[in-house]
Amino acid sequence: MEISLSEISKIIEGEIKGDPEKIISGIAPFENATPDEITFAGSAKFLKKINETRAGAVIVPIHFKETSKNIVQVDNPQVAFAKLLNTFYPPFKPKSGISSNADIGNNFSCGKEVYIAPFCVIQDNVILGDRVIIHPNVVIGNDVVIGNDVEIYPNVTVLERCRIGSHVKIHAGSVIGSDGFGFAHDGKTYHKIVHTGIVQIDDDVEIGAGNTIDRATFGKTWIQKGVKTDNLVHIAHNVTVGENTVLVAQVGISGSTTIGKNAVLAGQAGVSGHLKIGDHVTIGPQAGIAKSVPSGMVVSGSPEMPHKVWLKVQNIIPRLPELKKKLLELEKKLNSFEKNKKTEK
Amino acid sequence: MEISLSEISKIIEGEIKGDPEKIISGIAPFENATPDEITFAGSAKFLKKINETRAGAVIVPIHFKETSKNIVQVDNPQVAFAKLLNTFYPPFKPKSGISSNADIGNNFSCGKEVYIAPFCVIQDNVILGDRVIIHPNVVIGNDVVIGNDVEIYPNVTVLERCRIGSHVKIHAGSVIGSDGFGFAHDGKTYHKIVHTGIVQIDDDVEIGAGNTIDRATFGKTWIQKGVKTDNLVHIAHNVTVGENTVLVAQVGISGSTTIGKNAVLAGQAGVSGHLKIGDHVTIGPQAGIAKSVPSGMVVSGSPEMPHKVWLKVQNIIPRLPELKKKLLELEKKLNSFEKNKKTEK
Amino acid sequence: MEISLSEISKIIEGEIKGDPEKIISGIAPFENATPDEITFAGSAKFLKKINETRAGAVIVPIHFKETSKNIVQVDNPQVAFAKLLNTFYPPFKPKSGISSNADIGNNFSCGKEVYIAPFCVIQDNVILGDRVIIHPNVVIGNDVVIGNDVEIYPNVTVLERCRIGSHVKIHAGSVIGSDGFGFAHDGKTYHKIVHTGIVQIDDDVEIGAGNTIDRATFGKTWIQKGVKTDNLVHIAHNVTVGENTVLVAQVGISGSTTIGKNAVLAGQAGVSGHLKIGDHVTIGPQAGIAKSVPSGMVVSGSPEMPHKVWLKVQNIIPRLPELKKKLLELEKKLNSFEKNKKTEK
Repeated sequence: MEISLSEISKIIEGEIKGDPEKIISGIAPFENATPDEITFAGSAKFLKKINETRAGAVIVPIHFKETSKNIVQVDNPQVAFAKLLNTFYPPFKPKSGISSNADIGNNFSCGKEVYIAPFCVIQDNVILGDRVIIHPNVVIGNDVVIGNDVEIYPNVTVLERCRIGSHVKIHAGSVIGSDGFGFAHDGKTYHKIVHTGIVQIDDDVEIGAGNTIDRATFGKTWIQKGVKTDNLVHIAHNVTVGENTVLVAQVGISGSTTIGKNAVLAGQAGVSGHLKIGDHVTIGPQAGIAKSVPSGMVVSGSPEMPHKVWLKVQNIIPRLPELKKKLLELEKKLNSFEKNKKTEK
Repeated sequence: MEISLSEISKIIEGEIKGDPEKIISGIAPFENATPDEITFAGSAKFLKKINETRAGAVIVPIHFKETSKNIVQVDNPQVAFAKLLNTFYPPFKPKSGISSNADIGNNFSCGKEVYIAPFCVIQDNVILGDRVIIHPNVVIGNDVVIGNDVEIYPNVTVLERCRIGSHVKIHAGSVIGSDGFGFAHDGKTYHKIVHTGIVQIDDDVEIGAGNTIDRATFGKTWIQKGVKTDNLVHIAHNVTVGENTVLVAQVGISGSTTIGKNAVLAGQAGVSGHLKIGDHVTIGPQAGIAKSVPSGMVVSGSPEMPHKVWLKVQNIIPRLPELKKKLLELEKKLNSFEKNKKTEK
Repeated sequence: MEISLSEISKIIEGEIKGDPEKIISGIAPFENATPDEITFAGSAKFLKKINETRAGAVIVPIHFKETSKNIVQVDNPQVAFAKLLNTFYPPFKPKSGISSNADIGNNFSCGKEVYIAPFCVIQDNVILGDRVIIHPNVVIGNDVVIGNDVEIYPNVTVLERCRIGSHVKIHAGSVIGSDGFGFAHDGKTYHKIVHTGIVQIDDDVEIGAGNTIDRATFGKTWIQKGVKTDNLVHIAHNVTVGENTVLVAQVGISGSTTIGKNAVLAGQAGVSGHLKIGDHVTIGPQAGIAKSVPSGMVVSGSPEMPHKVWLKVQNIIPRLPELKKKLLELEKKLNSFEKNKKTEK
């Protein structure tokens, strides 16, 4: 693909300084870009060494201009780069159509340009929107409703009655709508609690590979608009994850917990059940959250504490042996004082 | 569905106070139940506000009666509620039969009313009991034996020779009988140790979604009667999990460890290999268990400690910076004492 | 199977002391072996009680001879035992051939003695080497290249363009080549960053069940020769895992981190992004690695510290309440000293 800098600037809504006729034939990271390629410098770190890149053009923040390079100034270089990547690497779309090797249930309804791969099972009363792509070996249960422009990767399971919005991606091997982990204990054995609810996934959500999202006991487990989950994330029954919240790999959320909007849970963090995590909360990696967290907080550690405290605590923990030693020395010293004192008397 | 309170009381073996002719048409949680619905109040918390629920009837503990509501007194309200949920929401059973789109191996034997969905692969010499439900895209390896009333959800893999009892559920995407993680190290590279054993899952077990349960090197990895596992649980080779033990989401059990009966391992806990965890042990969330735990203990933390100690420890950890400061002040004070003392002499 | 000790000694390249005509009909662990079976004693622990085993023969280290048992002396008894297990339990190979129930794309090329099971989907332009075994319900994406003697277990997904070497095993349910977790944030929502790269898996790698290995943003996520991963391991985009490194169950590696050769990461450990973990590093269970780790180090804890320090720290943590008490007592004592002092003056 060959495209002029002026065409690129239209796509990413930027301002060119340099040669608008410059032909760009690729896109690459800062360190690897060649003279035919465009890259981006989003932070001071990269802007400082902008003259070192071999790239033929660089996407930069709006007010940056101290360079002889061809630059395209934009509001957000990383977002512009993401957009341009789509131009150079348009997502592969399989040719629409339903494989004769797919098993389609009764009362199936779907929009236009839908693709259903071999060995998919679409059970009864399923509704798919336009331009839905269902990759091979996916199972969609009875009464599932899916919006437009959804892509479901291989070996995913979406169980009965779950609802998926538009512009959603679900990566390979994930399970949507498994039974919640709920049992009534009679003192000896556990009696299964039927899970009558569903999972609802709103628009613009991306679910990573190998996730497990349980259906609600009653009502819904709810993944709101714009949520992104990484791989191997577990979301229990009746959880709500608020808009544009990010769950990094191997995070686990226990039942009935509500996570606010625009939160970030770092990798391997775990949240106990029935908690309320506010909006714009950041939770550190491997944190263990046992109490609700008010909006705007940054917490870390297990149990969680304000991140600023954690920064100090994590410096002290490896020094505990030394502090213990000091404490025992002080004790000894003080005891000998006391002894001397008594002797003096 | 419409059913009288008196019929309900027969199902859950309860005693009615109030109107036995009251017609109930649904079942719902305490906060949401409408005048046509029944709910339950199992704990003091809910019993206290029993007159606030709009529910038409409430399942309560056997001796509770201080209310003008229609009540049904039972031994265990939560268990009764679980039972009644099954009446209102009977589990969906696909029509029995073997899909012409399933691939069935040689020497297949199965009981009555079995359902095998499209794109299942049942390899050779497999035996299934009565009323087994195999959902789509499940793979059952050679020589696997499965009991009665077992339900296996989509995209599950059960590998060769594993044995599954009766009344077992295995949720979507789980893997039963993958090779254990065993290699002989020659100082440079790792040589695979063939895993000759199996996984045995006893009656009344429920395995969550996305679990991985490895086969034994020799003998069996053994999930005993009544065990319940949540999602993304890992159980290594030669582990035994005792009767009615509960493993919450993302728990990992290392090789050759034995867990006793009626234990509870909370989410993201990890247990090292070759340990013995006793009966009725409770292990806290994210705990890291490096030593065997005697029966009846409640442990938390990483490394584990008695839970009562952990409750104190977790209060102290965020205060470490403050304690360190205090220690350094004491040291300073004591040093200045010493100095003064020397000056005095 | 019946085989003489002298034939066994040829297979494992050992030296017999005892009866070379002794017929062996099985192989078993030290505690369970019967007089017809062979076992091994690799460590002092087992060598000490060698006369207690009922085994008909024992594989021992090269210089060991203090026993009246039939022994076979070898360099590495565990490696010899692993080798011999392969003789008694040769891996089951399905009969080669491509199932008529598999869906094979255009431009497919494969070597000899390949097996492709029912309901596998092999997309376009896929190349397989010799003796490749693809178990049921596996999905192989467009342009994937796979070497010789590779075995891919059921329900695995290998996405487009990934490259897999020779002598590789990928266990059930794993996902190779899912999109990395990369989004550009515009202050409100997240814009997907197209992942143009691949996953490359080199020779002699074994990937456990339920793993998720993400493709690179650019270039490759790289699992080098001889790496072994346990179950439910997550490897993010652009990670490199060096030769013969071992990742135990539920480990998570964040994006762009490089792990050296011959490292061992114990269960549930997590490594942050953009770090460099050296060769021969050992990382303890549940460790949280936030900084790069030089070659040869043994680290534990979250945050990580030298393992020797951690051994002390983990003894102190449960004693924190006691140390705090002591500190407060010292403070009190010192304060009363001070008071007395003032009174004295």
